[in-house]
Amino acid sequence: MSRTAGPVVGIVGGGQLARMLAEAATPMGIHVRVLAAPGDEGATEVVPDVQVGAPDDADALRSFAATVDVVTFDHENVDHTTLAALESEGVAVRPGLGTLRLSDKAHQRRVFADGGLPVPPFEVVDPGSTPTAAVDRARRFAALHSDAEGRIVAKASRGGYDGRGVWMLREDDIESFLAEYRGAPLVLEPKLPLELEVAVLVARRPSGETVTWPVLETVQVDGMCDEVFLPSSLPEDLDPAAREIAEAIADMTASVGVLAVELFLVDGRLLVNEIAPRVHNSGHLTIEGTATSQFEQHLRAILDWPLGPTGPTAPVAVMANVVGGPGGDPRDRQGAALSAVPGAHLHLYGKQSRPARKIGHVTVLGDDLTRTRAAANLAADVLGGTAGAGPDMAGSPDE
Amino acid sequence: MSRTAGPVVGIVGGGQLARMLAEAATPMGIHVRVLAAPGDEGATEVVPDVQVGAPDDADALRSFAATVDVVTFDHENVDHTTLAALESEGVAVRPGLGTLRLSDKAHQRRVFADGGLPVPPFEVVDPGSTPTAAVDRARRFAALHSDAEGRIVAKASRGGYDGRGVWMLREDDIESFLAEYRGAPLVLEPKLPLELEVAVLVARRPSGETVTWPVLETVQVDGMCDEVFLPSSLPEDLDPAAREIAEAIADMTASVGVLAVELFLVDGRLLVNEIAPRVHNSGHLTIEGTATSQFEQHLRAILDWPLGPTGPTAPVAVMANVVGGPGGDPRDRQGAALSAVPGAHLHLYGKQSRPARKIGHVTVLGDDLTRTRAAANLAADVLGGTAGAGPDMAGSPDE
Repeated sequence: MSRTAGPVVGIVGGGQLARMLAEAATPMGIHVRVLAAPGDEGATEVVPDVQVGAPDDADALRSFAATVDVVTFDHENVDHTTLAALESEGVAVRPGLGTLRLSDKAHQRRVFADGGLPVPPFEVVDPGSTPTAAVDRARRFAALHSDAEGRIVAKASRGGYDGRGVWMLREDDIESFLAEYRGAPLVLEPKLPLELEVAVLVARRPSGETVTWPVLETVQVDGMCDEVFLPSSLPEDLDPAAREIAEAIADMTASVGVLAVELFLVDGRLLVNEIAPRVHNSGHLTIEGTATSQFEQHLRAILDWPLGPTGPTAPVAVMANVVGGPGGDPRDRQGAALSAVPGAHLHLYGKQSRPARKIGHVTVLGDDLTRTRAAANLAADVLGGTAGAGPDMAGSPDE
Repeated sequence: MSRTAGPVVGIVGGGQLARMLAEAATPMGIHVRVLAAPGDEGATEVVPDVQVGAPDDADALRSFAATVDVVTFDHENVDHTTLAALESEGVAVRPGLGTLRLSDKAHQRRVFADGGLPVPPFEVVDPGSTPTAAVDRARRFAALHSDAEGRIVAKASRGGYDGRGVWMLREDDIESFLAEYRGAPLVLEPKLPLELEVAVLVARRPSGETVTWPVLETVQVDGMCDEVFLPSSLPEDLDPAAREIAEAIADMTASVGVLAVELFLVDGRLLVNEIAPRVHNSGHLTIEGTATSQFEQHLRAILDWPLGPTGPTAPVAVMANVVGGPGGDPRDRQGAALSAVPGAHLHLYGKQSRPARKIGHVTVLGDDLTRTRAAANLAADVLGGTAGAGPDMAGSPDE
């Protein structure tokens, strides 16, 4: 690597978020260096400057940080002790350890509740270290908050993603579930009657400047983000409140970079579900659908450059995730997907296709929400090899 | 490189066009492999899969072609004999040798004239092999076509770019110029009274499907493309003719991929100036300014995938080239450029900055042509380090 000028951004982790950060960095003349674990797929196919090392290996992290101007993240499973040391030595760790710690859902919920943000009722129990107290507290919580079918929700505070690490518990099952559970403390919350799920992306610079994007509506299937679109159907009078919550979280944690804030609408009221302290699946449509993508903005924020405009580029933008289907690889199906939807923007992550694994996404811009959603889902299904597998297949009516 | 699925595109040459092709390939899950000469800058910083070798080295070209699904080009200075052999062996060489040969301006002019396309009056002379005949024919041409100041234009048929290889000749100087000239045959043409210069990009698939983009207006300074914008000021009734000329050229040569056709408007009539048998500087604004960029479209065309829509994404799009200034490197000035124009889309090519060298470009989208041109030029000047060097510097009025 000959490099004579310009900033070097170090990304810890080599998955698709690192890949898309690198895609945004290249045009801007930002050099990207990735610390990738041996099995990481995504960024390594397209980033020449890779250090192989585990993100929880203190020596690897330290030697990596010494070669870059700013350290940022593809994911949060990183050695926090080393990060704290690096931060105290003056290394630019962004978003910063205070924000990264929010990836612990129990810690996050407490910080937001203490900060006066609207959160669902919750309880944190730790069956690993205090089993009896955990059962008692969980039962009390269930007595107060069970839904009509007697259920509450339990979420692992760390390590869950895409619907994993989330359970529905009946009051009768609490004791046996907690006795068998091996893992991080659990956050308990009611099974809320959700009217809507939305996300607000916010970017913050070291100076404190923040910008938010238009509110995004997210559609979850089996706890996994399936589809995102704008404009959202959030009532217009709630739009300022949604953006203010996101800004408050960025300010509260003095975060640097992009944060994604997931909100529930329940009984006409916004509640903070959880945040991701980084670029996020809910923001992928910003690549084509808004004036500045979340990836470019994150780079601008962590380099303390002026932030870009975030307005929509089209009346409607829809992103649909591409998940692996029963056979084959989407990298052999781009032609078929573009034949179905010539204006689709395809994004593949260079990951092996496996059923239910997120391996890419498709964004379609348009004027009409219903038609644009149908087009985005069709393109994603053809690309993933899942077209025809479900009732949402938009086949020819006479087939 | 582990690669288990999908197409592999081989790009001969590792400059900025290869870099921007790779930027378009990555999201689509297309693997890019580059044959780069040892001194090439641009693509090598951002493409991991590079074979080092000269594009005029038959062995390098042959071994490179054996590892990819389709061969395409960053530039045309490639060994044509080997390409012809590869093509006859069934290798997918795209746009194809017939089209690449048009990079010889003398050959190109003859093919277009023979094909009935509107071209300026011209004469080809070869002072290297027939010096006396060259002088006679040049004098006859000058007698017929000199402008009011007694001048004609001479262009080297090969090897010229960005204003190099172009000379204004007075009738009195013809003999001495030709006696001293060492180079490829010359194309002579009148110094035309240009009303306008425009470019039309056209993409063609192997099946024959073609698409054109909106007509682009190009602004040349010292023979080098300085600025491109849309909509062009070409009278609307000439728009179909401009697009038809581009399609005719693509069809005539059975080209595969993107071609750029540069047209002059002279006395209300369109004339073909020259073409580039590839993606081109005039098309860089298609990255943000049209629904499908020239780079993505080129990849789709050479892979025989359906072509994408080419309509504008905003009322106005302006691209300004970034050229090296007196000092420093643009990779240290992105923050300053974004501070001047927060909505600017920056593109840097990873090349060392040298005065008058193209090292990047900036695209700005907007509603008003005058304001958007001012913004794009300001951002490009700040990035290039040339701001304040000329009268177009938009500084604070009280500085």
